[in-house]
Amino acid sequence: MNERGMHMRGVVLYGPGDVRVDEREIPELVEPTDAILKVTAACICGSDLWPYRGADATSQPNPMGHEYVGVVEKVGADVRNVKVGDFVVGSFFASDNTCEICLAGYQTHCVQRQPGAATGAQAEYLRVPLADGTLVATPGMPDPDLIPSLLAASDVLGTGWFAAVAAEAGPGKTVAVVGDGAVGLLGILAAKQLGAERIIAMSRHADRQELARSFGATDIVTERGDEGVARIKELTGGLGAHSTIEAVGTQESMLQAIHSTRAGGHVGYVGVSHDVSLPGLELFMSGVHLHGGPAPVRRFLPQLIDLIWSRTIDPGKVFDLTLPIEEAAAGYKAMDERTAIKVLLQA
Amino acid sequence: MNERGMHMRGVVLYGPGDVRVDEREIPELVEPTDAILKVTAACICGSDLWPYRGADATSQPNPMGHEYVGVVEKVGADVRNVKVGDFVVGSFFASDNTCEICLAGYQTHCVQRQPGAATGAQAEYLRVPLADGTLVATPGMPDPDLIPSLLAASDVLGTGWFAAVAAEAGPGKTVAVVGDGAVGLLGILAAKQLGAERIIAMSRHADRQELARSFGATDIVTERGDEGVARIKELTGGLGAHSTIEAVGTQESMLQAIHSTRAGGHVGYVGVSHDVSLPGLELFMSGVHLHGGPAPVRRFLPQLIDLIWSRTIDPGKVFDLTLPIEEAAAGYKAMDERTAIKVLLQA
Repeated sequence: MNERGMHMRGVVLYGPGDVRVDEREIPELVEPTDAILKVTAACICGSDLWPYRGADATSQPNPMGHEYVGVVEKVGADVRNVKVGDFVVGSFFASDNTCEICLAGYQTHCVQRQPGAATGAQAEYLRVPLADGTLVATPGMPDPDLIPSLLAASDVLGTGWFAAVAAEAGPGKTVAVVGDGAVGLLGILAAKQLGAERIIAMSRHADRQELARSFGATDIVTERGDEGVARIKELTGGLGAHSTIEAVGTQESMLQAIHSTRAGGHVGYVGVSHDVSLPGLELFMSGVHLHGGPAPVRRFLPQLIDLIWSRTIDPGKVFDLTLPIEEAAAGYKAMDERTAIKVLLQA
Repeated sequence: MNERGMHMRGVVLYGPGDVRVDEREIPELVEPTDAILKVTAACICGSDLWPYRGADATSQPNPMGHEYVGVVEKVGADVRNVKVGDFVVGSFFASDNTCEICLAGYQTHCVQRQPGAATGAQAEYLRVPLADGTLVATPGMPDPDLIPSLLAASDVLGTGWFAAVAAEAGPGKTVAVVGDGAVGLLGILAAKQLGAERIIAMSRHADRQELARSFGATDIVTERGDEGVARIKELTGGLGAHSTIEAVGTQESMLQAIHSTRAGGHVGYVGVSHDVSLPGLELFMSGVHLHGGPAPVRRFLPQLIDLIWSRTIDPGKVFDLTLPIEEAAAGYKAMDERTAIKVLLQA
């Protein structure tokens, strides 16, 4: 398959802060619904930083990565929707896309879902289960400059988009965005595409503020916590935002999002909750709608690929550092220290 | 005004378990937007039981009650929508019904809201602030048999209705209802009116089960907690309900509601949260929509009055004990001991 026979390079986390690029076995088809991809590009996710920082237990060396684009190398006997040679974008949970839950648009909760299915995407090859329900082929081989944007669709764009949809961003709405990581920034892009009238980015970093504005933010709030909430209230006639995107996942960010939202408004939360405990009476009295969770990226992939293919949106701008896969450790470090917003790894 | 001059009978809570009927001053107009009602009937709310049981601090004697129907006795100079002699139904929060929040249907969060405004409704007379935005007049003087149903509209029906709307009960949906108090039971009635296909009542009391069925429940689940959740899953092909109404307000009932709901489904919660703390990651992974809070009853009053006036619905059936106001203490006791579902007090 490649010059090293049955082996490939892949990123493995051995423990907190210990990222290595190992020789790993090239995955093979296991189920007839599988596909094997030759990975074109993968990336490092904010959620990869939790185990990197030791917040999630890592008991053994873990292959890393769950965001990917690539070319189909092999397909199992039952695969119908993608074929060898297709360039595909996948979502981070494998789903059948045919069950009642998938048809309702919640592919991350598919009755056959395989949460860790695409784990190990920071590698040269990747096995993707339930290929028909998980992968979406692009109209052809993409121009190289489209690859970062297509890669973004695989997770951060799809997640930011889901957050904006969950927050019911749309015409006439004021949208507040808590979190200026790639997901928050692409939540801004999504809110803009969905027609939001006003988009308030909460960020204290000049480079991220600039990207936020380029994606459609109309206002920047640099304060956090209660002060941030007070500023949002000031900007919205005392009422709070109609829609708030929460893209961090901490207790402070969740409460900041809930408090920034008017009664009857919508909070779309996609930051993976860590040590969050929502006070019931406070939530009750807020009168907000709360919806979120692991984003059903697959729901949005066809639409997102269209928008990228037609060059209507350019979500790939969130990648401010591109590295060969061998330098993955430097990529993790840059994300961890927030010197990079989002790192693209070339496989 | 009455035979006792400036005084009237009114229910006052002196401390846990200590309900008395006192002579209180008849309220007077204070603001030009006020109305004074001669109360026809009031009732005891599940939420009145929290201070009755000592769960909410009661530092001084508190006039009780916030659900009422009555006849307008006086109006302030600025009141336009109701007039002396009108029979009216009010909601438990005073609201202007003209601000942006009210116009969006969230009158309990009105920018001018007065949460305790109608407190003291278990009395012969009641001052209602913001009368134009709070009260709705019936088409005429109601037949006496309609009074319990109109009274129910003032809180328990409006709250159950909001829960069903928040849970997005509707055609093709399976709705689970956690809580067999008056609000839960009327949530069943609401889900039925909204067109739900299947309504699963969670109740272990024969009399409440019967009422649940009469309001439209198609299935009864007697188990609670994890066992109750397992039964709901069994009844819904392993997926959970599309819509769940939570009408209790405890940690157990909230988790029971969330776990009973499929990903992408909706939990409408209206039980006033007491000592509830929602685990963030569990909520995140559930993928449900969560919406609730103090019900904006005013939003639904015109529609509910129509349905009652036309005898399409009979929510007054939840009152299984009617007492003269002098016997309020017995009413609280019956509610507390669950020998009565809902008590009507005749003023």
